[in-house]
Amino acid sequence: MTTESTLHIGRIPIRHLSPVQPEGLWPAEAFVGEVVPFSATVFREGHDIIGVDLELTAPSGATTVVPFPHPSPGVDEWRTTALVAEQGTWSWRVKAYSDDWATWLHAADLKIAAGVDVDVMFLLGIDLLDRALAGTRKSAKTAPLEVLKTAFANTTGDPSDRIALAHAVAVTDALTANRPISLVTYSDSVPLLVERERAGLGAWYEFFPRSEGAVRATDGTVTSGNFVTAQKRLPQLAADGFDVLYLPPIHPIGRTNRKGPNNTLDASPTDPGSPWAIGAAEGGHDAVHPDLGTVKDFEAFVTAANKLGIEIALDLALQCSPDHPWVTEHPEWFTTLPDGTIAFAENPPKKYQDIYPLNFDNDFDGLSAEVLRIVELWIARGVTIFRVDNPHTKPVHFWEWLIGRVNAAHPEVVFLAEAFTRPAMMQTLAAAGFQQSYSYFTWRNQKWEIADYLTEVSQKTASYFRPNFFVNTPDILTEYLQFGGVAAYKIRAALAAMSAPSWGVYAGYELIENVARPGSEENIDNEKYEYKFRDFDSARASGRSIAPYLGRLNAIRRAHPALRQLRNIELHHVDDDAILAFSKYLPGHQTESGRPDGVIVVINTDPHAVRESTLRLNMELFGLPNGTQFEVTDLITDTTYSFGNDNFIRIDSFTEPAQILAITYPDDETA
Amino acid sequence: MTTESTLHIGRIPIRHLSPVQPEGLWPAEAFVGEVVPFSATVFREGHDIIGVDLELTAPSGATTVVPFPHPSPGVDEWRTTALVAEQGTWSWRVKAYSDDWATWLHAADLKIAAGVDVDVMFLLGIDLLDRALAGTRKSAKTAPLEVLKTAFANTTGDPSDRIALAHAVAVTDALTANRPISLVTYSDSVPLLVERERAGLGAWYEFFPRSEGAVRATDGTVTSGNFVTAQKRLPQLAADGFDVLYLPPIHPIGRTNRKGPNNTLDASPTDPGSPWAIGAAEGGHDAVHPDLGTVKDFEAFVTAANKLGIEIALDLALQCSPDHPWVTEHPEWFTTLPDGTIAFAENPPKKYQDIYPLNFDNDFDGLSAEVLRIVELWIARGVTIFRVDNPHTKPVHFWEWLIGRVNAAHPEVVFLAEAFTRPAMMQTLAAAGFQQSYSYFTWRNQKWEIADYLTEVSQKTASYFRPNFFVNTPDILTEYLQFGGVAAYKIRAALAAMSAPSWGVYAGYELIENVARPGSEENIDNEKYEYKFRDFDSARASGRSIAPYLGRLNAIRRAHPALRQLRNIELHHVDDDAILAFSKYLPGHQTESGRPDGVIVVINTDPHAVRESTLRLNMELFGLPNGTQFEVTDLITDTTYSFGNDNFIRIDSFTEPAQILAITYPDDETA
Repeated sequence: MTTESTLHIGRIPIRHLSPVQPEGLWPAEAFVGEVVPFSATVFREGHDIIGVDLELTAPSGATTVVPFPHPSPGVDEWRTTALVAEQGTWSWRVKAYSDDWATWLHAADLKIAAGVDVDVMFLLGIDLLDRALAGTRKSAKTAPLEVLKTAFANTTGDPSDRIALAHAVAVTDALTANRPISLVTYSDSVPLLVERERAGLGAWYEFFPRSEGAVRATDGTVTSGNFVTAQKRLPQLAADGFDVLYLPPIHPIGRTNRKGPNNTLDASPTDPGSPWAIGAAEGGHDAVHPDLGTVKDFEAFVTAANKLGIEIALDLALQCSPDHPWVTEHPEWFTTLPDGTIAFAENPPKKYQDIYPLNFDNDFDGLSAEVLRIVELWIARGVTIFRVDNPHTKPVHFWEWLIGRVNAAHPEVVFLAEAFTRPAMMQTLAAAGFQQSYSYFTWRNQKWEIADYLTEVSQKTASYFRPNFFVNTPDILTEYLQFGGVAAYKIRAALAAMSAPSWGVYAGYELIENVARPGSEENIDNEKYEYKFRDFDSARASGRSIAPYLGRLNAIRRAHPALRQLRNIELHHVDDDAILAFSKYLPGHQTESGRPDGVIVVINTDPHAVRESTLRLNMELFGLPNGTQFEVTDLITDTTYSFGNDNFIRIDSFTEPAQILAITYPDDETA
Repeated sequence: MTTESTLHIGRIPIRHLSPVQPEGLWPAEAFVGEVVPFSATVFREGHDIIGVDLELTAPSGATTVVPFPHPSPGVDEWRTTALVAEQGTWSWRVKAYSDDWATWLHAADLKIAAGVDVDVMFLLGIDLLDRALAGTRKSAKTAPLEVLKTAFANTTGDPSDRIALAHAVAVTDALTANRPISLVTYSDSVPLLVERERAGLGAWYEFFPRSEGAVRATDGTVTSGNFVTAQKRLPQLAADGFDVLYLPPIHPIGRTNRKGPNNTLDASPTDPGSPWAIGAAEGGHDAVHPDLGTVKDFEAFVTAANKLGIEIALDLALQCSPDHPWVTEHPEWFTTLPDGTIAFAENPPKKYQDIYPLNFDNDFDGLSAEVLRIVELWIARGVTIFRVDNPHTKPVHFWEWLIGRVNAAHPEVVFLAEAFTRPAMMQTLAAAGFQQSYSYFTWRNQKWEIADYLTEVSQKTASYFRPNFFVNTPDILTEYLQFGGVAAYKIRAALAAMSAPSWGVYAGYELIENVARPGSEENIDNEKYEYKFRDFDSARASGRSIAPYLGRLNAIRRAHPALRQLRNIELHHVDDDAILAFSKYLPGHQTESGRPDGVIVVINTDPHAVRESTLRLNMELFGLPNGTQFEVTDLITDTTYSFGNDNFIRIDSFTEPAQILAITYPDDETA
């Protein structure tokens, strides 16, 4: 066609490729090991049969072709999945073609059975076989086509016998490589940015290094924990399966207007202050708080953690105490008022006099360059992950710039956005660069709202927004946790760890620290303003800690690849309005072992009751034919059940509120 | 910022502009006179207040600035509407800015009331006033700002009095033109294709010219109607408010395998055949059927119609009878089988032996050029609208090419797609060029499915898919019409005419022709295969015709601009499960009269019952404050009611199943 280049529609229309980001400003994203759903709307005029392939090219250049299965009749959206196992920018496109053989075979079956156009149909079949054979050398593989051609040409044979031969498996196989197709149409090429595994998958733990090994003497004086004493907890965290240790800011803390216990304004000289009030005479964002040790101590801590398989995530909190060196060296990075003072952080009429917010609009280039220098500095000191404090209070284009710069030089560096704000901002921060985001998870506690939220993050936004399901933070102790007892803590941990590939716990969770400052949603005597003296070991020894439970959850995640995915969450119906059920599944060709992996998670979101109900499973969602019986093993209690489509379930939140049921697949038994 | 050009996010993020087409392959579309909703997601870091403007540039170059009203707290989607009154390609963009005055005023009110930073806040206020005054000349308009500045500077005055002055209307007015703003950010420019009014708005009528004035003699012989006899119906159609008259194909009809009455295969020599079996010895798509007259007769018919304000829509059915001249002149435009015959249309094993489908893949350029020649020919003969038969059986890229070519030379030409098929094809045909499409309307008869469908076409796809709500066609006589009596015919006509700016009626509807061929969804003794002898005038005179009702609907549409829009449909709650209610509204600044126009349509979709229920109106959706009482006048019965938020309604389908209630606005009464 002479004018094709001016048209937007190809011979076979291919539209609505997915995954792409809304607006297409940035590539869709995945992480190494992720099984990514691909889809496109492909259709043609009339009733001829088409075929659709996904052509997926890895950063190294290798191209894989994945044929899309035919969608249900009447549906024009073609869907498949592919595992992306290599870091870097992939590209993919969709190939559509007229499946001339399938079209002919469909018509030939009907017409020959009806005695219509019998001779012509066989002649057309011979033409197609000639096309199939033309592109290939004679071989054992092509022999069935030659045989079929001879049968078609034999006009003395019974037509229904001759056409039946076209359905032979050998014929189908022979046509796989040399199928006669036409009207081949390609979509544009679409990029897919595949980041490293930890961008999307990891079990996080948060602690304040100053509390780890802190000692309170009998006279009440405190010796701060430091990187040496904190190091002692690393082996247990590694044993419990945590991959990332997040540290709140480790820099010198301001003294001017320092906050005291419970966010009071009158700190005593011995109060350590909030680590987020960054900067003092000892230095700013590039320094280590003297109480915690030296830069060398920090580097040794990082090395020790790394040896145990734990990465360090450092807080990047771009704000300053009034004592930060920048205040005198770079007043242009702050907002100066007409009276010559620097503006405090505020929520009018309230002022936060321990914090100066940065102003990015006076000297964007200078301030940006300094932040980049600091980030590079900590990368050089071994940090591979930054947990960014309140990114939604800084201009979004700054983050696009910073993360773009850092990842260009260090594609392995991961940024987690602590943006608890409105969806547009959270999604745009994620789209513009952040590999991970805190989420609304902690505030989704009812069955229906959890189900909605899991659907949103796994289906709608998963190509650019990766949630990290922290179950608590120093700022968040929800009413659900305050009043739900141990059951609530288990429920939320199991929910987070099983549904999201990235989940996290802030220290104290395992000890069921559930007393809030009255009227607030955070712990009383908050660790942000004081030391915590926790005896994890004796709590564990006496059974008062759920650390072993958390460790078990992490072990289950490591044993079951299906659980390390986000986009494969499938909800199942439970009659009860508190029991939530979902499954995750990977077919054998997408697991390392080659065996299918499927887990059904059934959680009683009511921490105060025993509930009984019926669980209705759509078994096709985890690779089994509906209507059969299969075995599941509860990975918490090691109990085995026989399951089918409809199952009686009973969940006692006072013992085990979550059932994590590994599916036994037929092949498993013989293995 | 040095690196801005590499970033996708501006200083203030502006995202998700609407209207745009999905994928952005073609511009979003509107029609002259349409009130178009515009929206964008705009937000910024922190809590400072922003302002957002729509900058809309007409094809002639004039730019209008429409400030977006602030969305509800917590919402980042900004929405407004604008009337587009000029044909051609518009462009628009979104401007976002930091509203420094509003930000300051909000903080100043709170802080001064709390006695915090009082002096500094006034100094900041003076800075802002200086900025406002710097860009302008001293005038009566700027005087309030000078006065305010003096008050701010007067440190002896009471602070609460001084800040109160900032809220004076005169100050707000003075700041309109010279508001101190900063961080101005623009979105990209987005095109909007505005087509002529008839692309989106019109009342259509369909008749077969051979039936209009056809005479059956007492011996049974028939004299065909023709363009001269058919012309006699035009004045009544015009009086009844129809804008477009659609004619099924007017070309010579094939004789080979001609279909007889009720789609039988054995036509007698006197059967006229289906007009869609195009082509005979007398000519093909460029010829006029001799029974209908000459090309000159056709041109005279068009001229007569145009004089009455009626445009002619011609059928463009790209298929051929075996007798079409192309069959011998251009066999390459068909599919030739191995036995040398040309392939019939088929749905295997069924064959349609009166039709050869065209094959666009052998000689796309040659066939396309010929179709373009034919379309140009009929344009030259006065045709301005083409109703395209079964476009979904031809390659979509052909339509993109053809309509693109035709509209480049004749932007006034409108194409209506008769694509009754799956959504992907229908939407892509619309996106790729068709100005209008037949729709699923006829099969949406239950209240809930009508509500869903109205939402879909008015909200989700309105920027590229314009439905034409035909109530019947020669192919479609739904069960709802077959068994619903007169009420069903009134319901469907009122629903179509009131909800869709484009609606249509096929002749016989006004006579309640509701007998179907048994087991089918089309009229018995279908006009496709035979002449119809209808006496519209005597039916009208004796009250057996609902033509006056259809005329009234069209008159109401002409009197109420709100009804000539698609995107302003707003559903209201009715307790009853059969009564559907929606309103349409335009504010005074978007009507020619300058007065607001609002209509509430309440339809009982149950043609077999009297129903009583409560109608719950959200009055803000039609420009009135909730909680007040207002008057409505039923434009069918001329009855007046007093309405409020909750209203008892009673609809008797045996008398008037649809209430079309014009809202009386306060200003109307004084006018």
